[in-house]
Amino acid sequence: MKSIGALPTTVNPADGSPRYTIPAIFDDSTGVAIADSALIAEYLDKTYPDTPALIPKGTCAFQSAFQELFYSKVLPIWILTVPDVPESLNPRSAEYFRKHRAIDFGVPSLDVMRVSGQAKEEQLKKAKGVLGDFDKVMKDGDTWVMGDKPTFVDFVIASVILSVKIVCGKKSEEYREFMSWHGGRWSRMMTILEEKYSTVEL
Amino acid sequence: MKSIGALPTTVNPADGSPRYTIPAIFDDSTGVAIADSALIAEYLDKTYPDTPALIPKGTCAFQSAFQELFYSKVLPIWILTVPDVPESLNPRSAEYFRKHRAIDFGVPSLDVMRVSGQAKEEQLKKAKGVLGDFDKVMKDGDTWVMGDKPTFVDFVIASVILSVKIVCGKKSEEYREFMSWHGGRWSRMMTILEEKYSTVEL
Repeated sequence: MKSIGALPTTVNPADGSPRYTIPAIFDDSTGVAIADSALIAEYLDKTYPDTPALIPKGTCAFQSAFQELFYSKVLPIWILTVPDVPESLNPRSAEYFRKHRAIDFGVPSLDVMRVSGQAKEEQLKKAKGVLGDFDKVMKDGDTWVMGDKPTFVDFVIASVILSVKIVCGKKSEEYREFMSWHGGRWSRMMTILEEKYSTVEL
Repeated sequence: MKSIGALPTTVNPADGSPRYTIPAIFDDSTGVAIADSALIAEYLDKTYPDTPALIPKGTCAFQSAFQELFYSKVLPIWILTVPDVPESLNPRSAEYFRKHRAIDFGVPSLDVMRVSGQAKEEQLKKAKGVLGDFDKVMKDGDTWVMGDKPTFVDFVIASVILSVKIVCGKKSEEYREFMSWHGGRWSRMMTILEEKYSTVEL
């Protein structure tokens, strides 16, 4: 990250040192490196004005406020995913994940966050409530926040739901539940994003 | 409120009974009564499509999320205004205000919220920080959230700043501070809203 010139986005809660995070991009055609998804979106919109806008004109403050509100409420979904380290991680990454996510969530070990049985059902109900509150105000259409097209905040929502798919598995009870909620809004969102916007099999 | 058919918007925290709040409107031409500012805005946009939109198409979820985030952060401004009951209130309203705002804020009496001297300066600094975070993401223009025109959320922000003007007074240290912050953004906002959108002298 340092060698391409990407800046740290936060500090490590453990020791206050700069923290470098992904997503980050290095744009070959301009030599510019950017970390932080919102800054990347802003950069791409500005540098490539002829491609679909992630942050359409007039929605900058809205995209930011929506993202902040969404992240402030999304803990019930993290609880369903964070303690189960994805099997796809190599051992060194898995160790880093276990150590640093525990620090982020202020717990001695991710294991104390793990829920099962009745507690898991409760957590799923809370997650449904969180997404339901957003679904209720998304009155401009049946899929996207802005109604007619996906913008930055749809990728914010989808990335969290994608963590359920990757960590719990696409055939898991959790992911199938998410896909059934709110008239299938999240299912449509995931299907379209994966078919039209993703270059990897998820 | 009952006689015009306006619905309660919340419940009284004291006893769980329905609470009727203003703003509320009764539309003579349709016979419809609506309470709750967001529902009023939605109703007006739908019923009078040829007037400027408060909630432009595609921004419904954004307006709602922005309002919720704003209200979740605005306590430092309430602390500057709530304990000082406006002199313009008649005695019965003033008594109601003192009693029910204390219940809303979970304090035995509004007097315990009152700040002065150094504590007031601290509170002003916090209020500046809150508005500063919003100012920072309002990159689409130097006045309005959406850049080119006021929408629902600008009235949300302005209504809170207006409470400072009315309660502390337009010549108060507090209001003059607000008007000086962030390149004069809030001052421009208040001036234009009062000159172009208000029918009463504020």
